[in-house]
Amino acid sequence: MQFEIEIATRGQGLYEFTEQLHDRVSGEGLLTLFVRHTSCSLLIQENADPDVQTDLLAFFARLAPPATDSRMRYLRHVSEGPDDMPAHIKAALLPVNLAIPVRDGRLRLGRWQGVYLFEHRDAPHRRRVAGHM
Amino acid sequence: MQFEIEIATRGQGLYEFTEQLHDRVSGEGLLTLFVRHTSCSLLIQENADPDVQTDLLAFFARLAPPATDSRMRYLRHVSEGPDDMPAHIKAALLPVNLAIPVRDGRLRLGRWQGVYLFEHRDAPHRRRVAGHM
Amino acid sequence: MQFEIEIATRGQGLYEFTEQLHDRVSGEGLLTLFVRHTSCSLLIQENADPDVQTDLLAFFARLAPPATDSRMRYLRHVSEGPDDMPAHIKAALLPVNLAIPVRDGRLRLGRWQGVYLFEHRDAPHRRRVAGHM
Repeated sequence: MQFEIEIATRGQGLYEFTEQLHDRVSGEGLLTLFVRHTSCSLLIQENADPDVQTDLLAFFARLAPPATDSRMRYLRHVSEGPDDMPAHIKAALLPVNLAIPVRDGRLRLGRWQGVYLFEHRDAPHRRRVAGHM
Repeated sequence: MQFEIEIATRGQGLYEFTEQLHDRVSGEGLLTLFVRHTSCSLLIQENADPDVQTDLLAFFARLAPPATDSRMRYLRHVSEGPDDMPAHIKAALLPVNLAIPVRDGRLRLGRWQGVYLFEHRDAPHRRRVAGHM
Repeated sequence: MQFEIEIATRGQGLYEFTEQLHDRVSGEGLLTLFVRHTSCSLLIQENADPDVQTDLLAFFARLAPPATDSRMRYLRHVSEGPDDMPAHIKAALLPVNLAIPVRDGRLRLGRWQGVYLFEHRDAPHRRRVAGHM
């Protein structure tokens, strides 16, 4: 079974879609997700304290700052905006896939795990995540 | 077929469990692993020279040092200890999943590849890895 | 269905093999790839502007420079050459697996996505990628 989820983003950040996945799965098996873009990522992270998300964003913004930052002077691919090449870098560092076991129609996530789309671009985007089970 | 492996950790480090996986698989297929936590990771790495593991630990400790390090002053999520938010960062950077082809009841790993749980917390933990084949 | 693709590399860089995958898949399902090495990676990235690949290489060369760089003085595993331990670090940071949905015999990649082997070693290598569908 294949499906596609569309997620509207409004700038850099983590967008949880765990519940949309629960609506799609049933029985027992393995749900595999694949994000069809090269400037956003999938991520499983803690869904309890929102400060975790703030800190993750801050860490990755420091690791791959905008092309306008002096540390990124070496970048060549800058024509699509100062946030574009750092977005490709983050998309290389973070997952393009996730695979989550399903039992009794429920994702077998750990207690603190939520499923997120991690948007790396500043402008709003419509992101497509392909699902396979 | 689904199963769960429990791995007891004693602080930050790499814990190999390749042999426990060989005990679980048979025939031909794809073994998918999923770690049900947000402060440890799965990793395939060289199992020959133990210095590789020491160096990997050192690299990630420098990339995401404890919250007590002056470079990490921006972190907000510090109430669960100085090793907690760096653990979430490492859990974002390193795999939550692995998928390994199986043939004739054997994992088709390369000659130097071992399967590890990478613990990012200082305190002992019991970690659960879900398997699907 | 399992298969293996061999890719000859000539030093650090991204080697696209999207078309070789299209030759292997048919019908509907999920193609899973697994690289059988600990010093190269798989990667999905933009296949439009070649500067993206140049910038990715530059970013990772700065993040994990050769053992001869003063910032990497702490490395112990240096007997296999100054590019070897940085290769293991990059192999930890970048994917060992990819899973791509297939429909009507085509990989359901996004418009700008290509599938690459990311070689981290300087010397030529023959790399083996296992496929499962």
